Amino acid sequence: VTTPGQQPKPDEFDLIARYFAPLAGEGALGLKDDAATLLPRPGFEFVVTKDAVVSGIHFFPEDAPSSVARKALRVNLSDLAAKGAGPVGFMLALGLGNGWDEAWVKEFAQGLEQDCQSFGASVLGGDTFRTGGPFIVSVTAIGEIPQGNYVSRLGANADDEIFVTGSVGDAALGLQVRMGQNLQLVPHERDHLLDRYLIPQPRLDLAPALRSHASACMDISDGLLGDAQKLANASDCGMVIEAKSVPLSDAARSSLNTWQPAMETILTGGDDYELLITAPASRKAEFLRDAVEAGLSLTHIGQCTKNTGHVEVLDCDGKPMQFQSMGYCHTDYT
Amino acid sequence: VTTPGQQPKPDEFDLIARYFAPLAGEGALGLKDDAATLLPRPGFEFVVTKDAVVSGIHFFPEDAPSSVARKALRVNLSDLAAKGAGPVGFMLALGLGNGWDEAWVKEFAQGLEQDCQSFGASVLGGDTFRTGGPFIVSVTAIGEIPQGNYVSRLGANADDEIFVTGSVGDAALGLQVRMGQNLQLVPHERDHLLDRYLIPQPRLDLAPALRSHASACMDISDGLLGDAQKLANASDCGMVIEAKSVPLSDAARSSLNTWQPAMETILTGGDDYELLITAPASRKAEFLRDAVEAGLSLTHIGQCTKNTGHVEVLDCDGKPMQFQSMGYCHTDYT
Repeated sequence: VTTPGQQPKPDEFDLIARYFAPLAGEGALGLKDDAATLLPRPGFEFVVTKDAVVSGIHFFPEDAPSSVARKALRVNLSDLAAKGAGPVGFMLALGLGNGWDEAWVKEFAQGLEQDCQSFGASVLGGDTFRTGGPFIVSVTAIGEIPQGNYVSRLGANADDEIFVTGSVGDAALGLQVRMGQNLQLVPHERDHLLDRYLIPQPRLDLAPALRSHASACMDISDGLLGDAQKLANASDCGMVIEAKSVPLSDAARSSLNTWQPAMETILTGGDDYELLITAPASRKAEFLRDAVEAGLSLTHIGQCTKNTGHVEVLDCDGKPMQFQSMGYCHTDYT
Repeated sequence: VTTPGQQPKPDEFDLIARYFAPLAGEGALGLKDDAATLLPRPGFEFVVTKDAVVSGIHFFPEDAPSSVARKALRVNLSDLAAKGAGPVGFMLALGLGNGWDEAWVKEFAQGLEQDCQSFGASVLGGDTFRTGGPFIVSVTAIGEIPQGNYVSRLGANADDEIFVTGSVGDAALGLQVRMGQNLQLVPHERDHLLDRYLIPQPRLDLAPALRSHASACMDISDGLLGDAQKLANASDCGMVIEAKSVPLSDAARSSLNTWQPAMETILTGGDDYELLITAPASRKAEFLRDAVEAGLSLTHIGQCTKNTGHVEVLDCDGKPMQFQSMGYCHTDYT
């Protein structure tokens, strides 16, 4: 039932045909069927991962639909990157929340198309439905990797070195800015942090170097320290991270001088989508060189230890730092 | 923050480790990583499909969590069956709605485990989050099929025969019963309809016969006539279906005598999860025989035609039937 002046809302099939079929990949039959066929190239295997984003939790309801689409896809591409895989395609479950209209879907699809082109991924299928509540985008990404080259989070050894890509903490600080916290930054610094929260950068270009050198890897979505704790638990090792080595953007560095909780936010806040990597010391030089050749910043931040499940951050004086909130690692942190 | 007497709710990682890791399949690393690796057996390819179920739309908020889990999985297995594929595993996005507690998740996982065992599927990974609204279960199912044997909905020819598995309309009538409609049925008939709405039966046992004989197939989720329209559109053909041939359960047949809208509900209501199949006339006898051998009921219900996009249902006198609601086919129905 529509009231005068109100456009009837298109149904699921219209939306898919109009906005998502143009993004369909090989094997997806133009999204005219309920499924897609997939075969890895000879010598390759698939890597499958699934992460959902929800309005009010992972993004703001008022975020541009195009950036919601890009974040939903990128958090999954980030997981593929962490496993050393390259993207093939993805299944999209689009849960339309209260207040959706066709313009929302159109802009969402435009953002998706932009990133499909950037990253060489295509839509393999999916499902569109109304949630009666928040917007929910649940993506299942499928990547490809040479057989036997999967990089898990279970393989770190007690004497491995620890690395991280890019810069840490920008997105968590961006979220603070977004929520109204005044970090006393200049506009371009504020914009940098806001953008890092809104649009993650999956580090797919590092995948080949990871496959060559890494013993373990995961992407940092729940904060550097919390995720370091998870990697240490999964690999049965400990970790010592030097706070002074953790790579910071200029904006994050400025915030250290202007906002007291900045360091804690940087080390424990979420949404970085950088990669946390371990590799044998013997590979350090080559790994750093390969990262440079891939055009990515890679920084050595610490060492694995035999102290199973214990993750420590040392300050400039080599003393363990303590934070009110350590994310998911607080129970094990000593 | 918890109030006295209230159990703290376990976080995502606790829930996954406690309830879903025991269901993890090969390549899923016990759900300790963010992804899984997958390689089809030699000579096979993957079939991927994705359907979500949402409380208040696809199931009732008060439904037993175990039946929600089973429905969420089975609607996806039904899509695999329709493509001629067998299940391998699935990715699970579990959106916990308002009012969830650990007991809900536990019972959900129990239902999932039961069906994982019944159907030989395993959990490959997933994601758990709070929706702040309804419960949403978004499953991506991965199946396997001999290379080149995928059964699409695009391949029906103008002189093919039309078949359907099982019985049609039970779930739609079950939904009516569930919503309080008195169909004046005896208790075991009511229970049959209610159960058919709650727990779909994916017709996986028919997959080998489909691959041998079918020209096109899809599962009926939006009503026989609406889905016949979709298949006809996708295959560029028309369809004539004889209402008297459509297979009905005893309960559905009883309802025809007691509730005037029963026939329309049976032919246009959703949630059947039976298979709608086309096959060449030359294959009819063999297809019916193979279905019997697979232990499945298969019924011939009509013929494809050259009348592109036109789906007709004929009554006992051979006259086209008209319904108030034809589901998604109403605009093309003449």
